[in-house]
Amino acid sequence: MLLYFLDLLGTGVFAATGAMVAARRNMDIFGALVLAFVTAVGGGTIRDAILGSTPVFWITDTLYLQVVCLATAVTLLGKAWWHRTRHMVQVLDALGLGVFTVIGVEKALSLNAEPMIAVIMGMLTGAGGGAIRDVLAGRVPMVLRQEIYATAAIAGGVLYTVMHDGGMDRSVVVVACATLVFVLRLLAIYCNLSLPKVSVRTQ
Amino acid sequence: MLLYFLDLLGTGVFAATGAMVAARRNMDIFGALVLAFVTAVGGGTIRDAILGSTPVFWITDTLYLQVVCLATAVTLLGKAWWHRTRHMVQVLDALGLGVFTVIGVEKALSLNAEPMIAVIMGMLTGAGGGAIRDVLAGRVPMVLRQEIYATAAIAGGVLYTVMHDGGMDRSVVVVACATLVFVLRLLAIYCNLSLPKVSVRTQ
Amino acid sequence: MLLYFLDLLGTGVFAATGAMVAARRNMDIFGALVLAFVTAVGGGTIRDAILGSTPVFWITDTLYLQVVCLATAVTLLGKAWWHRTRHMVQVLDALGLGVFTVIGVEKALSLNAEPMIAVIMGMLTGAGGGAIRDVLAGRVPMVLRQEIYATAAIAGGVLYTVMHDGGMDRSVVVVACATLVFVLRLLAIYCNLSLPKVSVRTQ
Repeated sequence: MLLYFLDLLGTGVFAATGAMVAARRNMDIFGALVLAFVTAVGGGTIRDAILGSTPVFWITDTLYLQVVCLATAVTLLGKAWWHRTRHMVQVLDALGLGVFTVIGVEKALSLNAEPMIAVIMGMLTGAGGGAIRDVLAGRVPMVLRQEIYATAAIAGGVLYTVMHDGGMDRSVVVVACATLVFVLRLLAIYCNLSLPKVSVRTQ
Repeated sequence: MLLYFLDLLGTGVFAATGAMVAARRNMDIFGALVLAFVTAVGGGTIRDAILGSTPVFWITDTLYLQVVCLATAVTLLGKAWWHRTRHMVQVLDALGLGVFTVIGVEKALSLNAEPMIAVIMGMLTGAGGGAIRDVLAGRVPMVLRQEIYATAAIAGGVLYTVMHDGGMDRSVVVVACATLVFVLRLLAIYCNLSLPKVSVRTQ
Repeated sequence: MLLYFLDLLGTGVFAATGAMVAARRNMDIFGALVLAFVTAVGGGTIRDAILGSTPVFWITDTLYLQVVCLATAVTLLGKAWWHRTRHMVQVLDALGLGVFTVIGVEKALSLNAEPMIAVIMGMLTGAGGGAIRDVLAGRVPMVLRQEIYATAAIAGGVLYTVMHDGGMDRSVVVVACATLVFVLRLLAIYCNLSLPKVSVRTQ
């Protein structure tokens, strides 16, 4: 129940980021709907295709699509209130990353995947949709930029598998991990927190 | 039978657009074949992977690949005749969009998907291959540009599900919807027809 | 046994190219790990999703992920030794292309795919991961550039199916084809060998 709510929440906020990027590119309303859709369900779709859990989740439960439509409509109608698009996109993306990382880890563990695989599936679920959005929009995906992004998702996934093994209450684990990912991303955005770079002299 | 013919027609015209983009980028003949191939079968492959209809359609019926090879050969041999590449790519892409949108909706409905899902699958099938072509070629996909594109596919999909529910003859529905999508795209290209934009002041 | 070793070898060298591209973009260590991962397993994941062989290969055998982690660590720790990144990436990519093309053809044939399909699956397995790496990094994939790339993979795949039909010893076929692809790519890189272009006057 908590997980289902968080899944729909992540769907909504990722859809909103897709609609915002569409608005910045002067796309029409159905173009915005499509970009919102692939952003919101892209990560989970890749996860399900890899795990062989098909038809994928949004085929059998249309509530996800309804949330995408609603979030897109609210975003476009309310666009007078979110002038500072770039930060809004980053913050909502961080929230979606946290929620979807947990959803991905949870789904992989429920299919008896090993912890290492579960962490990867959490990362793909969390970062996949946003990466598709950015590639389609001709931008380098957030996951490839300097700030902590993959790091946040992997940290959340590792914490999840450790707490899960420790037999802790699932609701506590879910909330703790999603919060960890979200907070790490916010720190990266607002405090320019980052890990040491692995740079190299280029020719 | 009509659907199979249209499917092969869409495969051929999308392959031709891929070969044309390859020619503009000075790729060699096998590179052009690969780009033609992913453009022609990319949308249907995503559709089948999402629906869990695997192995995907072109694995079990090699006629699709033969059409891709033929269309690529004809396109490259006949390149003296299509100087105005940009318009040719757009018009053939519009024809492929119309045909593949119908194929996608039809396939989803045959697997008992809900109408809303069928419309989405039509859009993914129609726009997916061209989006892969454009992303690989380093261009922003047509579906993200200002003119009616997603709108045309969604309009065609909605018309299909409505006419299908109304119990109309399938051939009529197929032809009507593919034509609607094609004509809407042509209007967008040649008359600069577009929906109101959803722009926003950027920082 | 030979194939499994070559598969892990391809995984390692492709992971190294991903880590090198990450280092050139100043990504942090976990970002590099993610890029190494999608580069190393991307092609095989697309192959398995298309063939319906799910869960995909790296879900059930975590040795692939361990190789990715190891190769990333070695690459980043040893970065003082590979100044000339661009050539290193191209050469390791060529080695991975050769090995993964053979793995892809082999897997498709083992599932009774027709020779034409097997050649395509070899090409997708070999070129897929590198294409994802390049698209995510905002570069045009090697497969779309002028030098022989798709050509090498297709030549290797065709040679494989011909030798396979001829009933030759599998180890010989595997080594001969991987070597052919690798050597063709090296010739393209170092001798500027290429096929005739299929260019066209652009508007």
